[in-house]
Amino acid sequence: MNRYEEFQAFRTRLNRRILGGDREGDTPSSPSAAAKHDHAATAGSLPNAPGPQPTGATLTTKRFFNLDAAAYKPGALDVKTKELLGLVASMVLRCDDCIAYHIDQCISVGVSDEELWECFDIALIVGGSIVIPHMRRGVDFLDQARAARANAKT
Amino acid sequence: MNRYEEFQAFRTRLNRRILGGDREGDTPSSPSAAAKHDHAATAGSLPNAPGPQPTGATLTTKRFFNLDAAAYKPGALDVKTKELLGLVASMVLRCDDCIAYHIDQCISVGVSDEELWECFDIALIVGGSIVIPHMRRGVDFLDQARAARANAKT
Amino acid sequence: MNRYEEFQAFRTRLNRRILGGDREGDTPSSPSAAAKHDHAATAGSLPNAPGPQPTGATLTTKRFFNLDAAAYKPGALDVKTKELLGLVASMVLRCDDCIAYHIDQCISVGVSDEELWECFDIALIVGGSIVIPHMRRGVDFLDQARAARANAKT
Amino acid sequence: MNRYEEFQAFRTRLNRRILGGDREGDTPSSPSAAAKHDHAATAGSLPNAPGPQPTGATLTTKRFFNLDAAAYKPGALDVKTKELLGLVASMVLRCDDCIAYHIDQCISVGVSDEELWECFDIALIVGGSIVIPHMRRGVDFLDQARAARANAKT
Amino acid sequence: MNRYEEFQAFRTRLNRRILGGDREGDTPSSPSAAAKHDHAATAGSLPNAPGPQPTGATLTTKRFFNLDAAAYKPGALDVKTKELLGLVASMVLRCDDCIAYHIDQCISVGVSDEELWECFDIALIVGGSIVIPHMRRGVDFLDQARAARANAKT
Amino acid sequence: MNRYEEFQAFRTRLNRRILGGDREGDTPSSPSAAAKHDHAATAGSLPNAPGPQPTGATLTTKRFFNLDAAAYKPGALDVKTKELLGLVASMVLRCDDCIAYHIDQCISVGVSDEELWECFDIALIVGGSIVIPHMRRGVDFLDQARAARANAKT
Repeated sequence: MNRYEEFQAFRTRLNRRILGGDREGDTPSSPSAAAKHDHAATAGSLPNAPGPQPTGATLTTKRFFNLDAAAYKPGALDVKTKELLGLVASMVLRCDDCIAYHIDQCISVGVSDEELWECFDIALIVGGSIVIPHMRRGVDFLDQARAARANAKT
Repeated sequence: MNRYEEFQAFRTRLNRRILGGDREGDTPSSPSAAAKHDHAATAGSLPNAPGPQPTGATLTTKRFFNLDAAAYKPGALDVKTKELLGLVASMVLRCDDCIAYHIDQCISVGVSDEELWECFDIALIVGGSIVIPHMRRGVDFLDQARAARANAKT
Repeated sequence: MNRYEEFQAFRTRLNRRILGGDREGDTPSSPSAAAKHDHAATAGSLPNAPGPQPTGATLTTKRFFNLDAAAYKPGALDVKTKELLGLVASMVLRCDDCIAYHIDQCISVGVSDEELWECFDIALIVGGSIVIPHMRRGVDFLDQARAARANAKT
Repeated sequence: MNRYEEFQAFRTRLNRRILGGDREGDTPSSPSAAAKHDHAATAGSLPNAPGPQPTGATLTTKRFFNLDAAAYKPGALDVKTKELLGLVASMVLRCDDCIAYHIDQCISVGVSDEELWECFDIALIVGGSIVIPHMRRGVDFLDQARAARANAKT
Repeated sequence: MNRYEEFQAFRTRLNRRILGGDREGDTPSSPSAAAKHDHAATAGSLPNAPGPQPTGATLTTKRFFNLDAAAYKPGALDVKTKELLGLVASMVLRCDDCIAYHIDQCISVGVSDEELWECFDIALIVGGSIVIPHMRRGVDFLDQARAARANAKT
Repeated sequence: MNRYEEFQAFRTRLNRRILGGDREGDTPSSPSAAAKHDHAATAGSLPNAPGPQPTGATLTTKRFFNLDAAAYKPGALDVKTKELLGLVASMVLRCDDCIAYHIDQCISVGVSDEELWECFDIALIVGGSIVIPHMRRGVDFLDQARAARANAKT
């Protein structure tokens, strides 16, 4: 597995571990319920494990994940702009997995390489040379993500 | 106004500006609604202003504020521990207003000065000398917050 | 002076101090010259001071300022998008003056309040509640910057 | 070796390299001695190496390590609370190895999974979505650390 | 009071509040004593206050302050280099008071303006444009610190 | 490959990918040209690839790389001091690859182990215990870098 594949596999596995496999059951009901911090056993997350399920995330964490997804939906700003905002924020905060995620999303919504490189410019100027190693890994991930899509078509 | 009073006044004024004065109208209805990013005019936030209301926060931001409040409600951990967690996180991230807020909350829920100083220890050791100027401002705020409460009683 | 005016005055004064008053004299000539680190006296920066001029920035710093300006010029991404990228990066890195600068630039290039609030959403979700005090000051600055422009027209 | 084992092995090996193998010899004597910055050869750190020992840490670094250990001793706050403070600070500063270390310590002093997940909540809300990849690795480490203890009993 | 004077006054007042006025009484005795976290009343810190003294820092915090001072003593590296290291670290971490402190120390140990500007270069390149507002305040502080010394001589 | 070799190989490969293989063609001509953001195909970067070359960095990014190199040239401060400044900045910002790069540079310009350990002291005191895992990896890299040079001589 190259890094593109490892990233996707680890993210999928741990999101199931954190959120539980059955996302229908995660629907937040009311704000007041958040205070209860129910630690629902993450049913379905480990389908083949015979014993009791491990403790999963609280409602607060699950709601944060929902809110995180909602923030990138189109509104006054389109999805391409929002994903670029997520990418540049991830780059200046220097989180490799967040950079990888938003590069993948940018490709999915049609951001061009020219646009990505100009986004990298802003990250580099704002964040400084400390961003460079993360840019290197981001560019390598970008090439793998483009290649994975090219392979999927053929 | 000393910093304690300025902090409270600015925070209250801007929270009204961001969230709108009528919190009842902020009730999130359903997760799917978040995607609409309704920019409700912040009715009531500027009660004496004759003209149109300025644009206020999106539902995403308003929900984040609700989630932020929910995270500190008692659960497996009690409120004292949760406020100390919020304080140490604010100290190592070096946000003076966040430190002030959590010190004020800690006092409100009965955290002693001895407990606060040991929380400062952890922040200092984890975050290093760069935390010291924030500790100084935090200690000064602590003294003002204790004094404000003593004055309110007499 | 409110914060909008203080911000502009301090920024202008210190940029003159750092870069020197005569920007024509700052033209970088060749890359190899950068190594010399000439510390040009910042001629013109303190026009009324009778004595010798204080030491100003090196060529490296002056070139960085030029590069910083160049990064926000339109290219594959338009200026509105680039300023929003600068704004969200400044918010998650929690630099009040950088936030103020990019909000001012966003207004100048026609970014709407609705677009700004969705940019704030991304900053808040990516950066967490630690961003909130900076969002408060940013919103306050936004209102002052809009008011300054409205006053200038009348 | 899984990550739990790699983490323990690397940490042990490098602490010996940094502090030297013979901790009795590290006893700080007096504050003024710190100024001498004696670079004691790390005697015993590489017991089988025939040649000269590599230069090890200064007294300043060794004392910092001692102070780091002292900060988590019980006082006005108990060890569970202190380890949770160390964990949330590590999460918002996004240091995977620090997160791993404090999760391991939390387990050792009896922190429950429910308490850990509420600590994760605070880290996520304060630090934002940028914390999520570190939470994923922390949860994976938590499962390995629990499993290692279960295996050790049987 | 300009910022140079405010900085010195606040730092002195709060260090007394945190460490207590009688530094002789702070002498750490032995490493094991650190675990006791004695919260010594900061005798002498508020000399005119009639009532009980407020709780001051723990031994851990006091020892950290001692260690912080020890780290800048001359060793294999001279004090000028060490202060420049402290300055560049403060700049990339963007702590205005730490920058002010190390600029003041640099001046005291004879660092020239040309050397300071090259240190600013490294901070700017490593840390990016987010450092610029802190550089502006640092340069303004530098001018005030040089002026204060010039005034003191005449 | 150990980490020293992996670091060098990855850095070299990605720098070619980002900057293109033919550095002569990267010469920045004039400041105004930067605004064009020409995305030159990185000719020569993938010599054996038959198809079209991938999009490489903009002129802004390429100029930043040049400026980054220029900042470490000798001036009022010598190269040893500048590399130590780069190292301490990288440590407090906790970038493993930047730490590795500057340790390697420090060795190349003759910085001794005693000097490096005192630089580590400053990083540890300023940045706190969160720096420790990065110090461990830095020390391990230092040993590998010294060993690689010793092997190259024999």
